[in-house]
Amino acid sequence: MCRWLAYSGSPIVLEELLYKPAHSLIDQSLHARMGVETTNGDGFGIGWYPADHGEPDHVEEPAVFRGIGPAWSDRNLRELAHCVRSPLFVAHIRASTGTAVQETNCHPFRFQRWLWLHNGAIHDFPRLKRDLVLAVDDSLYPSIEGSTDSELMFYLALTFGLRDDVPGAVERMAGFVETTAARHGVADPLQMTVAVSEGEQLWAFRYSSAHASRSLFFSTSVQALRALHPDNPVLRRASEDTRVIVSEPLGDLPGAWNPVPESSYAVVREGRDAIRAFRPRAGAV
Amino acid sequence: MCRWLAYSGSPIVLEELLYKPAHSLIDQSLHARMGVETTNGDGFGIGWYPADHGEPDHVEEPAVFRGIGPAWSDRNLRELAHCVRSPLFVAHIRASTGTAVQETNCHPFRFQRWLWLHNGAIHDFPRLKRDLVLAVDDSLYPSIEGSTDSELMFYLALTFGLRDDVPGAVERMAGFVETTAARHGVADPLQMTVAVSEGEQLWAFRYSSAHASRSLFFSTSVQALRALHPDNPVLRRASEDTRVIVSEPLGDLPGAWNPVPESSYAVVREGRDAIRAFRPRAGAV
Amino acid sequence: MCRWLAYSGSPIVLEELLYKPAHSLIDQSLHARMGVETTNGDGFGIGWYPADHGEPDHVEEPAVFRGIGPAWSDRNLRELAHCVRSPLFVAHIRASTGTAVQETNCHPFRFQRWLWLHNGAIHDFPRLKRDLVLAVDDSLYPSIEGSTDSELMFYLALTFGLRDDVPGAVERMAGFVETTAARHGVADPLQMTVAVSEGEQLWAFRYSSAHASRSLFFSTSVQALRALHPDNPVLRRASEDTRVIVSEPLGDLPGAWNPVPESSYAVVREGRDAIRAFRPRAGAV
Amino acid sequence: MCRWLAYSGSPIVLEELLYKPAHSLIDQSLHARMGVETTNGDGFGIGWYPADHGEPDHVEEPAVFRGIGPAWSDRNLRELAHCVRSPLFVAHIRASTGTAVQETNCHPFRFQRWLWLHNGAIHDFPRLKRDLVLAVDDSLYPSIEGSTDSELMFYLALTFGLRDDVPGAVERMAGFVETTAARHGVADPLQMTVAVSEGEQLWAFRYSSAHASRSLFFSTSVQALRALHPDNPVLRRASEDTRVIVSEPLGDLPGAWNPVPESSYAVVREGRDAIRAFRPRAGAV
Repeated sequence: MCRWLAYSGSPIVLEELLYKPAHSLIDQSLHARMGVETTNGDGFGIGWYPADHGEPDHVEEPAVFRGIGPAWSDRNLRELAHCVRSPLFVAHIRASTGTAVQETNCHPFRFQRWLWLHNGAIHDFPRLKRDLVLAVDDSLYPSIEGSTDSELMFYLALTFGLRDDVPGAVERMAGFVETTAARHGVADPLQMTVAVSEGEQLWAFRYSSAHASRSLFFSTSVQALRALHPDNPVLRRASEDTRVIVSEPLGDLPGAWNPVPESSYAVVREGRDAIRAFRPRAGAV
Repeated sequence: MCRWLAYSGSPIVLEELLYKPAHSLIDQSLHARMGVETTNGDGFGIGWYPADHGEPDHVEEPAVFRGIGPAWSDRNLRELAHCVRSPLFVAHIRASTGTAVQETNCHPFRFQRWLWLHNGAIHDFPRLKRDLVLAVDDSLYPSIEGSTDSELMFYLALTFGLRDDVPGAVERMAGFVETTAARHGVADPLQMTVAVSEGEQLWAFRYSSAHASRSLFFSTSVQALRALHPDNPVLRRASEDTRVIVSEPLGDLPGAWNPVPESSYAVVREGRDAIRAFRPRAGAV
Repeated sequence: MCRWLAYSGSPIVLEELLYKPAHSLIDQSLHARMGVETTNGDGFGIGWYPADHGEPDHVEEPAVFRGIGPAWSDRNLRELAHCVRSPLFVAHIRASTGTAVQETNCHPFRFQRWLWLHNGAIHDFPRLKRDLVLAVDDSLYPSIEGSTDSELMFYLALTFGLRDDVPGAVERMAGFVETTAARHGVADPLQMTVAVSEGEQLWAFRYSSAHASRSLFFSTSVQALRALHPDNPVLRRASEDTRVIVSEPLGDLPGAWNPVPESSYAVVREGRDAIRAFRPRAGAV
Repeated sequence: MCRWLAYSGSPIVLEELLYKPAHSLIDQSLHARMGVETTNGDGFGIGWYPADHGEPDHVEEPAVFRGIGPAWSDRNLRELAHCVRSPLFVAHIRASTGTAVQETNCHPFRFQRWLWLHNGAIHDFPRLKRDLVLAVDDSLYPSIEGSTDSELMFYLALTFGLRDDVPGAVERMAGFVETTAARHGVADPLQMTVAVSEGEQLWAFRYSSAHASRSLFFSTSVQALRALHPDNPVLRRASEDTRVIVSEPLGDLPGAWNPVPESSYAVVREGRDAIRAFRPRAGAV
């Protein structure tokens, strides 16, 4: 089982979220509280959209930094988290469910402006993998670099139109995985929380075929939190539209976290956010 | 371009071949002489069949040790080469032609009792990969772990019957790659020297679609060498049937190395060896 | 906190102890039960004296294999454990107490025929380090490669005569650390379990300045165990003089493990073993 | 032998210098032209002072990113070089002269606001190391993390007052190394090009005891270059005071590079630069 975090809001230095909170994500790499596996030491990754300072050559594509050791002891991660500032970033710590520990299997996965990260698994993946790979679009196929179910889910979603309709494509991906699994006699194949972004919006999905999905939380509105905790310095600096989505709550601020409901997704964009129902679309290809 | 070595003969400690000769394989990782790339620093691997000391629980499957750093500075490799003894082993140093530097892309690749290593490339591999992957047998497909052309060639050869007829399966693999490439308009797709073994015999192939194959050499008979160099201690210890096959000659023993001819393969087994013609078999699937 | 294991007895394949037992050492790298830290993911190492098969060039020095990732996911470790056979070996999994995660900080440390591994710490090590380093013999000093307290303890013990009198040298080392700490006003500086060997005998120390030492266990006599568990296949194959010393018990064989008492050491050699009192010798230099 | 680069001028994205020029530093990691060793594959590092965008929490200390694999295949380095912008940065590619390949031995070394990188060696370092280490100030000693001569030279220079008088401290360090070597009968002990910075100024030293120092070049004035090459886009964007100092010239711009003379140092600061004589100060402690 993995752990992840996604941030959207006023640009902040990454360590504010990755290292400083009590029970931070990096702390969770050693001591997660929720779920079966408490250690997430099989690699990690961060992806961030650079803060825009008005340079003529501003980069719009996200940068990615990944490592195969545990996050808790990685000095380069600590360095970057200390100096990189971003208005939208994601981080992931991995507990392998069997595939090799290598950078190409570390999240986030990137395609053009898109970042994808996943916690969960496709059940009986080795049996289903070939049929799932065959469904990936010819032009996308050569970009697959690793061997995980997570990356393949990303390329299936891209095949099913992620760049035009994010929730629709993820629903078609989920439906296709379930249809394929049914053909092979694999029950309840999909378990996922997923984060996706293109740099402007952030989507977070919570779903599992068995309707027993892994935990997912989003932060409540900064305004509401400020009213409750007028002296908290982090909250005072955060912009109104700042949101954090996490596998497992950070910190110890009562009232800060709401669970994302079973079979639903959250979408966060400047000034607005929403929770909607998620329904796999069967027979998608 | 990569470099490799394969040994069959009386059991020796690996460092005798990997480190001690002038211009040894490890030395070649820093300073190869032949070919375009002179540095092979993108990972390495060794595979060996353990010497049999008559233990009741003797292991017959080969062991594999792989690393993603350069071979020249790997201390664990030096340790193992100093203490592992084997009658049949292979070693590979990698210069990536684009795929990721990760253990699952390091040679040798292993399937059951079989080891495979490759120097060369499939031209325009990203364009051809999907069609090649589709031809891999359903039951073998889940064992593919990496993303290289080299590993895929192994699984195609396994699909085409490697375990029953080594030269035939490699010829069918080569023919299938060429047929697939022709369909995509890719000229001269295959460049390869390949070593294969199951622990008893050792096969080494030299072929390229353009008939301009990378170098490959095998050692001349130990008897002949001893007559020429009666004082050489390594030769005195080596059994009659000892053979070494290499991408690039080791040492400075005049008369020690013969080139494997273009479009041919060598087979080495106890007490016998042979060189035969290699002809891809088109339309193999 | 680290975890370690030392084996002396009839030659066995390493995986018998490292992977196969319930609650094996590799399992403890993810889920140790005793002590504060439950994860030991900051590197690992094994050291072994090769089994002697009567080859003329038999190697008597131990081999060492170390890695900086977690032991639980290291494929090379699994390969070696599957094929290396040894009559005397040690293994260590590390949880760093602050020093860098790098191979030169992984145990076991080796000097000539000697292996050393340690669980524990020197309290306030950065304050004491310089004075401790100054006491290392001039001729030994250049062999120090890493930056840990553990390796420095080894070089101090070597300086104090480890090669001639193991218990005496370790007692002088402990005394010197305590004297140096007292001069700097550091209370209760030493916490250690230590294993040492030269290939014939195996010593295991349990001591801490505060007399609250970390756990250490040795296996009871094989004969006694066989009487209790006549059907156990591992016990049937083990020679009479086989002994295992561990930070934390392996397996679930009732009666298999005895605690090494506070402030004492065990010495294991062919056919004999003993537990003796351990007393630091102050003012040793 | 190593290779390094130091940049001071208008903030640029690192890849402009690290990847884009013909014969860039990353290219030199595979194919250096000058000096004995042509491969620098034993780790690398970059250090940069973050561009100041007026944030209230602007970080003034430099960030450091180091890796133990070859620079040419490191994907994280490529990512960072693509998105990090800095007005003053350094980069180093390492060819080990014997010490371990580990992050704590990779340049640049950092102490507070200071960065240090070195190409060269202290001859017979294992013999001299202990006496050199003893001269390091007590309060600085615990910050030494690696095992190289290069890092030790940095801590000696800090001990001798680097933070108050850079050229004086480096001269005293060089003198002390030579005095210590003379006492041990080691001739011509020091070979160095060194870069140092605190974020405002940049110093580059070229010296060797035998007066046969490794190559070092600085870029000529941007104004002069622009007159010669009016169409070059990089030159058009660069500010007047931009300077680059390198072990080996980048690119193929005739007239762009001047050698730093034997036994001298360059200092670069906003709007001014100078070359001055370098003379070790013997008997410095």
